[in-house]
Amino acid sequence: MIYLDNAATTQTGERVLNAMIPFFRESYGNASAVYSLARSSKKAVFDARKKCAELIGAYPNEIFFTSGGTESDNWALMGAYDSYVINHSPDGKNIKGHMITTAIEHHAVLRTAEHLAGRGVDVTYVKPDGDGFIDPEDVVRNIRPDTFLVSVMTANNEIGTIQHVSEISERVHALRKDVLVHTDAVQAYGQTDIRMLTGKVDLLSASSHKLCGPKGTGLLYIRDGIKISPFIRGGMQESGRRAGTENVPGIVGFGEASAIASETMEDKINTEVKLRDLFIEKLSAIPDILINGFYAPKDHMKRLPGNISVCIKGIEAESALIMLDRAGICASGGSACATGAMEPSHVLKAIGRADDEAKGSLRFTLSDRNTEEEIITAAGVMAEITDKLRNGKKHL
Amino acid sequence: MIYLDNAATTQTGERVLNAMIPFFRESYGNASAVYSLARSSKKAVFDARKKCAELIGAYPNEIFFTSGGTESDNWALMGAYDSYVINHSPDGKNIKGHMITTAIEHHAVLRTAEHLAGRGVDVTYVKPDGDGFIDPEDVVRNIRPDTFLVSVMTANNEIGTIQHVSEISERVHALRKDVLVHTDAVQAYGQTDIRMLTGKVDLLSASSHKLCGPKGTGLLYIRDGIKISPFIRGGMQESGRRAGTENVPGIVGFGEASAIASETMEDKINTEVKLRDLFIEKLSAIPDILINGFYAPKDHMKRLPGNISVCIKGIEAESALIMLDRAGICASGGSACATGAMEPSHVLKAIGRADDEAKGSLRFTLSDRNTEEEIITAAGVMAEITDKLRNGKKHL
Repeated sequence: MIYLDNAATTQTGERVLNAMIPFFRESYGNASAVYSLARSSKKAVFDARKKCAELIGAYPNEIFFTSGGTESDNWALMGAYDSYVINHSPDGKNIKGHMITTAIEHHAVLRTAEHLAGRGVDVTYVKPDGDGFIDPEDVVRNIRPDTFLVSVMTANNEIGTIQHVSEISERVHALRKDVLVHTDAVQAYGQTDIRMLTGKVDLLSASSHKLCGPKGTGLLYIRDGIKISPFIRGGMQESGRRAGTENVPGIVGFGEASAIASETMEDKINTEVKLRDLFIEKLSAIPDILINGFYAPKDHMKRLPGNISVCIKGIEAESALIMLDRAGICASGGSACATGAMEPSHVLKAIGRADDEAKGSLRFTLSDRNTEEEIITAAGVMAEITDKLRNGKKHL
Repeated sequence: MIYLDNAATTQTGERVLNAMIPFFRESYGNASAVYSLARSSKKAVFDARKKCAELIGAYPNEIFFTSGGTESDNWALMGAYDSYVINHSPDGKNIKGHMITTAIEHHAVLRTAEHLAGRGVDVTYVKPDGDGFIDPEDVVRNIRPDTFLVSVMTANNEIGTIQHVSEISERVHALRKDVLVHTDAVQAYGQTDIRMLTGKVDLLSASSHKLCGPKGTGLLYIRDGIKISPFIRGGMQESGRRAGTENVPGIVGFGEASAIASETMEDKINTEVKLRDLFIEKLSAIPDILINGFYAPKDHMKRLPGNISVCIKGIEAESALIMLDRAGICASGGSACATGAMEPSHVLKAIGRADDEAKGSLRFTLSDRNTEEEIITAAGVMAEITDKLRNGKKHL
C-alpha cells in the first residue's frame, strides 16, 4: 500500500502508541482525583501540554486540550461570539456583530460561521486570488466597528496554500486590539514552523491525528490574557475552560507526536519537499493537468511541503480514486471531511476552477515516511489511470 | 493498590485495548475516505455503534459518538434549546423558554443549564427527597407551555440513587409530546440494565471510560425521529449530526467495552452488590457514620450496585483521602469532576446533609474486579483512619 492521504489522517507512530499504552493499562487514574495514581495522569497531561506548547512557541498555560480540530474551531468561533454578546449586551438582546473569514476555510469554520449567521451575525467571506492567497488588505478593509472576530486558516487543507496570517494578525490588531484573530492551523501544526504566529494570533486550532498522534484529541491555543467563553461546560478541567474528564492517553499521544515534530521538523520538511517536487515533476508529464494553489519548487513557506493538488481535465476524481485504490494507492478528492458527495469543492471554485476542471481534482498528501520509489510508482499509475479514463475505460 | 474509584474512571480492559490497537497501527484510515483502508475503519465504527446500541436496546442509527459524557450533556441541552429557538422564533428574538432539571445533576448539566439561564431560559431545579429520589410528580407539575426540555439523570454520580426516569418520561410525554426528555446516564450505562429507557426518553448521554472503555469517547442516544441541532459543526460525520474525524480506536474500544458489559451484566451486578453490602456492613461498625442515598441490602434497582457513599462525622474527607492514598486505597470525596476545591457537594446539600456532615463525605465505587479481601482491608483501614482523625492524628 502507498499511503498518500496524510492530510486526511496519519498512522499513529509507534513511539506515540508506546507512550500512550501505560495510560490505558497502569496509570489510568482520573487526572482530577487526589491520590497518587491520579497524580501520574496529571503529570502526564502537564508534560504533554509543555510539548505541544514548545512546538508552536507558546506557554503551556495557553494550551487547552479538546477532542480535535473541529471542536477547537467551533470553540473559537462560538466562544468569541458568546464573549462579544456578554460584553456588549448582557441581556443578549439586539446584538448582532460581524466576523470576517475566508471562502476557503474548512467546514468546521464555515458551518459554524453559518450557524452564527443564523443568529444574526454578519459574516464577510474574503475571496482568495487564483493561487489561493488571501490578501491581508482584503481582510483589514472589511473591519467594522462591530467586528468581533477574524478567522483565517494557516494553511489550506485542499491546496496547501499558506496564508499571511502573521501579517493579517498584526494589521488587524494595529487597527483594533479588541478584534480577536483566530487561525485554523490544523493542517500546519507539526508540518511547518508556525512559531511566529503565537503571541500574534489570539486563538489557534490544531489536531493530533494529522501528525501521527491519535484521533480524538486536539487543542485550542488561547493567547495569555485572552478571555473567550467556554464551549463545553461542566467540571473544572483545563483550568475551568474545557470540561470533561481528560483523555489522558490521547493527550499523552498528542504530546509525544508534537515532541517528535519538534525534533524532526527540518528533516521532515526537506524530505517532503523533495518528494513533492519529484511527484509534481512526474505528474506534469500528464497532458492537461493543472496544479492547484501556489507552487514553486523547493518552496515550503507558501505551500505545505507535503501537499500536491491537481485538476486533471477529462477525468472524474471518484473513478480515479477507485482505480488508485485497486492499485493500492490511497489519495483523496477534495477534502476528506466532505467526501461521500463528490460535488466540486468550495476551495477549487473559489480559486476559479471551472466545474469540469474541479471534478477531476485529486489531492496527494505526503509524509516523511513515503519514499522516492512510492512517488515514482504513484505518478506512473496516475498517468496510466488518466489515459484509461480518458479513453472510457474504468479498469487498469 | 485497592482501586475503589470506578465511578471516576476505570482501567481500560485488556480485551478493549487489544481491540483498539490495530486501529492505531494498521487500520488507521479516515473513516470518511473512499479507499479500502478507510472502509475497515468505517466498518469498525459501524460494529461499535451496534454494540453500544445493543447494550441499551436502541437502534444503531440512534447512537451518535461524541468525545464523552460531558459533551453529550452539553449537546443535549444546547441542541434542544437551539431547536426550540429555531422552531419558535426563527429570528431568535424575544424567545426565552423553560427547562426542568434537578438539583443533583452532574455539573455538565448544571453548568450548561446556568449558561442557558444567562440567555434568558427559565430553569426549574427539582429537589430530591432525603434518599436522593426525584418525585416524578414534582417534574410533571412544573411543566409550562414554554417548557422545551426535561433533564433528569438516570443514576447519581455521588450517592448512586437510581431515578424513576422511565416514569418521568412517560408522564411528561403523556402531557406534552413535544417536550424533550433527556437523561444523563453516564453513571448507569454498563452498570445496570437501562434498556427500558430507550424508546421512552428522547436523549441519553453515556461515557466510555466509566465501563473499562477508553477516555475521550462517549455517545448521545437520540431517539429515532427526534431532531435537535448539532453541537459541533463541520464535516458530515455521524450522519451530519456530529462533525469531526471519527476517533476510530476510541469508538472501537467503547464498542468492545459495551459488548463486554452486555455479556457480563448480570454477574457483574451480583458481584458488586455482594461486595457493596459487605463493605457497608463493615463500615457500619464505625460510630456516627451515615449512608448517603437510598440503601437496601441486595437492591440494585434503586441504587447503583457498586456505589457506597457515606458521611463520617468529625472527620474531613480531604485528610481521609490522603491517608487512604498512603494505605494504597483510591477513593473520592464528592464528585471527582469537582475536586480540587473541597466545598460541600451540591448533592449532599440537596439531600439535607448539614455542612459539617458533608465535609466528611467519602465515595467508594466498586467494579467486579474488586475482591472480598480488598473490601475487608479497605473497611478496616477506614475504621482506623476515622479513629486517628477523630483523635487529631493525621498519620496511620
